[in-house]
Amino acid sequence: MSRIALQRFLEKKIIQNSIIGLILFNSVIIGLETSPTIMSQFGFIIDQIDLLILGLFVLELILKIYAYRLAFFKSAWNIFDTSVILISVIPAAGSFAVFRALRILRTLRLLKNVPKLKIIIESLLHSVPSIGWIMVLLAIIFYVFAVIGTNLFGIEFSTYFGSLTKSIFTLFQIMTLESWSSDIARPIIALNPFAAIYFVIFILIATYTTLNIFIAIVVNTMNELHHADMLREEQEIRKMVKSEHEQLMEQISYLTDEVRALKEIHLDSDKKEIPT
Amino acid sequence: MSRIALQRFLEKKIIQNSIIGLILFNSVIIGLETSPTIMSQFGFIIDQIDLLILGLFVLELILKIYAYRLAFFKSAWNIFDTSVILISVIPAAGSFAVFRALRILRTLRLLKNVPKLKIIIESLLHSVPSIGWIMVLLAIIFYVFAVIGTNLFGIEFSTYFGSLTKSIFTLFQIMTLESWSSDIARPIIALNPFAAIYFVIFILIATYTTLNIFIAIVVNTMNELHHADMLREEQEIRKMVKSEHEQLMEQISYLTDEVRALKEIHLDSDKKEIPT
Amino acid sequence: MSRIALQRFLEKKIIQNSIIGLILFNSVIIGLETSPTIMSQFGFIIDQIDLLILGLFVLELILKIYAYRLAFFKSAWNIFDTSVILISVIPAAGSFAVFRALRILRTLRLLKNVPKLKIIIESLLHSVPSIGWIMVLLAIIFYVFAVIGTNLFGIEFSTYFGSLTKSIFTLFQIMTLESWSSDIARPIIALNPFAAIYFVIFILIATYTTLNIFIAIVVNTMNELHHADMLREEQEIRKMVKSEHEQLMEQISYLTDEVRALKEIHLDSDKKEIPT
Amino acid sequence: MSRIALQRFLEKKIIQNSIIGLILFNSVIIGLETSPTIMSQFGFIIDQIDLLILGLFVLELILKIYAYRLAFFKSAWNIFDTSVILISVIPAAGSFAVFRALRILRTLRLLKNVPKLKIIIESLLHSVPSIGWIMVLLAIIFYVFAVIGTNLFGIEFSTYFGSLTKSIFTLFQIMTLESWSSDIARPIIALNPFAAIYFVIFILIATYTTLNIFIAIVVNTMNELHHADMLREEQEIRKMVKSEHEQLMEQISYLTDEVRALKEIHLDSDKKEIPT
Repeated sequence: MSRIALQRFLEKKIIQNSIIGLILFNSVIIGLETSPTIMSQFGFIIDQIDLLILGLFVLELILKIYAYRLAFFKSAWNIFDTSVILISVIPAAGSFAVFRALRILRTLRLLKNVPKLKIIIESLLHSVPSIGWIMVLLAIIFYVFAVIGTNLFGIEFSTYFGSLTKSIFTLFQIMTLESWSSDIARPIIALNPFAAIYFVIFILIATYTTLNIFIAIVVNTMNELHHADMLREEQEIRKMVKSEHEQLMEQISYLTDEVRALKEIHLDSDKKEIPT
Repeated sequence: MSRIALQRFLEKKIIQNSIIGLILFNSVIIGLETSPTIMSQFGFIIDQIDLLILGLFVLELILKIYAYRLAFFKSAWNIFDTSVILISVIPAAGSFAVFRALRILRTLRLLKNVPKLKIIIESLLHSVPSIGWIMVLLAIIFYVFAVIGTNLFGIEFSTYFGSLTKSIFTLFQIMTLESWSSDIARPIIALNPFAAIYFVIFILIATYTTLNIFIAIVVNTMNELHHADMLREEQEIRKMVKSEHEQLMEQISYLTDEVRALKEIHLDSDKKEIPT
Repeated sequence: MSRIALQRFLEKKIIQNSIIGLILFNSVIIGLETSPTIMSQFGFIIDQIDLLILGLFVLELILKIYAYRLAFFKSAWNIFDTSVILISVIPAAGSFAVFRALRILRTLRLLKNVPKLKIIIESLLHSVPSIGWIMVLLAIIFYVFAVIGTNLFGIEFSTYFGSLTKSIFTLFQIMTLESWSSDIARPIIALNPFAAIYFVIFILIATYTTLNIFIAIVVNTMNELHHADMLREEQEIRKMVKSEHEQLMEQISYLTDEVRALKEIHLDSDKKEIPT
Repeated sequence: MSRIALQRFLEKKIIQNSIIGLILFNSVIIGLETSPTIMSQFGFIIDQIDLLILGLFVLELILKIYAYRLAFFKSAWNIFDTSVILISVIPAAGSFAVFRALRILRTLRLLKNVPKLKIIIESLLHSVPSIGWIMVLLAIIFYVFAVIGTNLFGIEFSTYFGSLTKSIFTLFQIMTLESWSSDIARPIIALNPFAAIYFVIFILIATYTTLNIFIAIVVNTMNELHHADMLREEQEIRKMVKSEHEQLMEQISYLTDEVRALKEIHLDSDKKEIPT
């Protein structure tokens, strides 16, 4: 089979839909594996089906790489797809619990293969650059507060602020406002009342910054839509004004011709008169 | 009574308002039933009134079905209305506590019968399609994380991740950020520090996706309003430009006529001159 | 002193500012009363000052009512102001702890007397009508879920769902997502797994509805501003088009006059020719 | 070295980038100090490096003050930069744990020295004035509720409402909705059911006001962008209308000239005729 024919075959609607069906079916299979009662009865056959589907996915991948060669890896989506399948191949060979658990990531292949989902993912990622630098700012805020927290509360409250990573996780929890006061802030404030300043300032800064991430996305999205709408309106008005303008120009041109004709006649009659 | 006459009767303002009144009165009655002291004294009479009102609702339903025939079931609102009444008929016959409790759903008939509420419900539902696929995405995220969670933490933390359904409920709780860290994440992280990655990534993805549901609704609503506003503005400018254009055209037309008249006179005088 | 002179006196900048100063000073005084150590030392004098300021407020109120008569009560702000002072008079006479505590409400007089705050309060209240019916909808949802909750969980979980009012408070807590799962839902679900449906549906409906209250306010505010902006733009374009239109019309009018003058000359010369 | 030459030297790209590199390196160093294992081994050398970098920062500061003289302190950013360095000098001399912890604030120098971050900080601060008076309103609400809370619940629940400052912190916790009911409201309501009114009203007012802070920022940001967009559109339409207007005027002017020329000819021929 030639590469072009293979490409045409792989892009067929029925093949695309079969793959989506296979991903869905596989997701159910892996879901069933979480139930000990089902596994004790049908464990063997479920494992076999899972292996078979993985085989089909690997086959699809090999065919695609053969069909498109290196061009296949130019799309970020294909790299994502390949990684998801490769992660699944590891547990098939070895037996690490974590890798077995990660086989369900194959379900994420839906994001690439269902066009509507692909569009949504792309629109979600589209907003990311506009919030990139606010994320950097948030990272700096986290780092500064984590270092201060570890230095000040690290010894007495080692569960929450025992190390930099612990502090960063605690600050993340505080940013989500979960038990920030009852579990974390109040015991510390009981020892040192001034610690309240640390927590209140962090919450104010972190929520205000998060808020601005959110605002950046809303404003960005709306602005693009709005801008497109405005350009369309402008075009519309421009078209209308232009058409009426042309009509006017035509009419005036006609009038000018008439006047010029009149002048012509006049000059003619003058000429005729002069010889008289 | 003819079907048309019945339709006209059922659509009368007074009938409509009586039904609203009846629903409100019934809601209070069912509310009173939650009080043991009131029930011990007036329990019998309250039950009788409740049955009577249910009878009236069923009568109203039968009359409507008779009056409108199958066309009645073409409106989603009528199907909703019918279901709510039917749910109420079950406890009247049987005695399941759950169905007795669901009788209060009759109050929801207000949503159909009070026009303002109907409009609000319809506008709330109006936004749903624009978020449909994001909901599908969220479902995929939930499923993937639920399977991973059940596989990784299911044995040691069976309260939270013991089965797929338990994991999904736990993830829903985590998405609302309720006790996600103090109750769920911290005990698991204490055993396996890398579990922190699971929770942080899930929270980031889940809140970011929820955020985008929200943004989709805001942007959608504003865009529609904005678009309507722009079209109105465009119409306004178009009308204004058109009217001024017509005035100009008229004036120029008049002028052209004048010039043409002048030419006429000239040609006439020329003709007169020639015979001379 | 005549009523008009009194009005002019009360509206003087210095009187207005003195009242603001007095309210601020009184707020500090009432704040100081919360400290037992300060009260044990300066309690008597602080109480005297508080009584004196209250006397001044009552005097101000009497003067205003004398100056403006019944017109005074036409403004909602004045009624608010009067109530706040009247609430303060009760504890001065009696000694109920609650009413003593409510004296601090006098601080709210700032909202009326500081113009900037008055504007903000009015803009906050301005959005309320647009969310009125969503609030009614939310009330219906609360009532329906409260009745169901009381009926289903009232006996076993009387702390949370023991009566209608308890259920409504619990639902309010659930709507704020505070400990909804760890404290309220999980113990109930442990007894009856289907209860999860109740909580999840309530949270989805309640948060979606609250979200729409929020969206209604944003969209409303933006729309008004936007609408004003659009009208301004429209005016601007209209003005511009009109001015250019007038210039054109003038020019064409002038041209028409020229042509008419030409016709006149022509007809004159024709007349002159004819007698020839 | 002259002051101008020094200014030019300090503004060199390589110097700017070296400072950014130095800040980043210093941040890592101070971060490492939080690890006891690293400090026990490399503590001495890390402290030396930290002192060296602080020396370089002080040198940079002195050079800048020498180069720009008093003009240096005209920028709020420079004052911020200076304070951050000065805070770091204190622990170098003394040994207070708090000041040692605050050395990490040097990392915040990135906010001034990385242009992108500077822009974001400025845009975050840009929204602050538009929310200034809502913050004042929120402060009044906090003060009023804190005084009421301290008076009513201060004796029985001294942990939460024991003093004005404790009450304000508790109200801040309630505003973030953290454990507001399970920890704070429910125990108080168990004693006095009417206390529920206090908490529900505070939450409604506080969240509604916070919501409006948020809305103010969104609306403000969008309005500015929108306004700029509208002005641009207006300019565009104005330019287009103007150009077409000028074209029309030119054409009509030409026509007028023609007519005038015609009149001229006519008058000439009349004059010629008369002598005849």
